[in-house]
Amino acid sequence: MATEAARPAERRRRGRGRRPAAEVRADVLAAAGELLLREGMTAFTIERVAEAACASKTTIYKWWPSKGALALDGYFHAVETTLAFPDTGDLEADLTAQLGAFVHLLAETPAGRVIAELIGQAQTDPELATALLTRYSGPRRALAVAAMERARERGELRDDVDLEAVVDQLWGACYHRLLLPNLPVTPEFAAQLVRNLLHGLRP
Amino acid sequence: MATEAARPAERRRRGRGRRPAAEVRADVLAAAGELLLREGMTAFTIERVAEAACASKTTIYKWWPSKGALALDGYFHAVETTLAFPDTGDLEADLTAQLGAFVHLLAETPAGRVIAELIGQAQTDPELATALLTRYSGPRRALAVAAMERARERGELRDDVDLEAVVDQLWGACYHRLLLPNLPVTPEFAAQLVRNLLHGLRP
Repeated sequence: MATEAARPAERRRRGRGRRPAAEVRADVLAAAGELLLREGMTAFTIERVAEAACASKTTIYKWWPSKGALALDGYFHAVETTLAFPDTGDLEADLTAQLGAFVHLLAETPAGRVIAELIGQAQTDPELATALLTRYSGPRRALAVAAMERARERGELRDDVDLEAVVDQLWGACYHRLLLPNLPVTPEFAAQLVRNLLHGLRP
Repeated sequence: MATEAARPAERRRRGRGRRPAAEVRADVLAAAGELLLREGMTAFTIERVAEAACASKTTIYKWWPSKGALALDGYFHAVETTLAFPDTGDLEADLTAQLGAFVHLLAETPAGRVIAELIGQAQTDPELATALLTRYSGPRRALAVAAMERARERGELRDDVDLEAVVDQLWGACYHRLLLPNLPVTPEFAAQLVRNLLHGLRP
C-alpha cells in the first residue's frame, strides 16, 4: 500500500494536468496493469486506477469506453515485455522460449487467474468479450503470426501451413489447460507442444 | 412446451416411483441434457429437471450434489453419441471425422454456448469447476487418449508422443476459438489441426 500511496503524491509534485497526453495514457495503462495483477478483476475499478495514476475519470473514459476495455489494455501492457517474441533464427528454440515465458506467467504469477477470469466473464458479457477480442487476444494473435511468418520466410515452415491454426495449437492449448485444469501448465508441456507440431506425431 | 408437458404425464401413466433406479437416473440425465441444450444454463434448475423427468428433487440430490454436477452429467450424456470416436484403422480420417462432429456441435448447435458458459462460470465457481473437471473434461480427455492409444498400438503414432498434450492441441485448440472467437470454428479448421499435428510444420 505504501508504494501505491506514494505514487499520486509524487505525480502531484510534478503538477497535476501538466503531463503530456501520451504520458498520462502510459501512467493510466501502467496503473491499470499493476492493480489488475496485484488484486485481480474483482478489485479493479476505474476509480482506483484514476487515483493510482493521478488522472481524472473523465480523462480515462475519453480513451477507454468501459472498465473491461481499460483492464484488457492494462493487462496487455503489463505482459507485453514478458511475452515478446525472440527471433534468433531458430524457430523451435524461439517458440519454446516464448511459450515457456507464457506458461510461467499463467502458472506462477497472478496473471493466470486474471486472464482466466476475464475470459470466463466474457462468455456472458458481450462488452467485455469485444474488448477481449480487439484489445488482447486479437493483437497477441497477430504478434504470434508475424513471428511465425518471419520463420516461414527463412524456410523453417511449410508454405501451406495455416499459421492461425498453429496459434490455437500452441497458445490456445495452454489456455485450454488453464481454463480446464485437469493437468498442470508446465514448461515441459510447453516444450512438448512445440515438438509435437514441428516434428509431427507419426513414426 | 407441448412435448415437455406430455413427458411427465406419459411417465405418470407408467406409474410414478415404479421405475427401477437405473431408469430414473437415465430419465433424469436425458431431461437434464435436453433442458440444457434447449434453453441454456441460465434456465437450468433442479426443479425443472425433476418435473421433466417425473422424479423427486430428493432423488436427484441423492445422485448429484449440485445443479452444476447434474448439468455436466446431462451435457456429457447428451453429446456422448455425437462425440463417439470412430476406429476405422486410419487415425487421420478418424480424428478428422471426430473433430468435425465436435466443431459442428460447438458452432452449429446450442451446445457451443452452453459449454462456453459452463467453462466461463467455472472460473469463479469452485464447485462448478470441480464438477466440470471430474464429470466432463476429465472423462472426455480419457476417451480421446484411449482412442489415440489404440492408434499408437497399430503403429500410427510415435511412442514418445505425449498424448495428453495432443488432446490440448486438437480439442483444446477448438475450445480456444470457441472461447476467444477471433476466428470461426469450422470443419476446415478441424481438418487443419489434424494435418498440422500428424505431418508436422517443417518443409
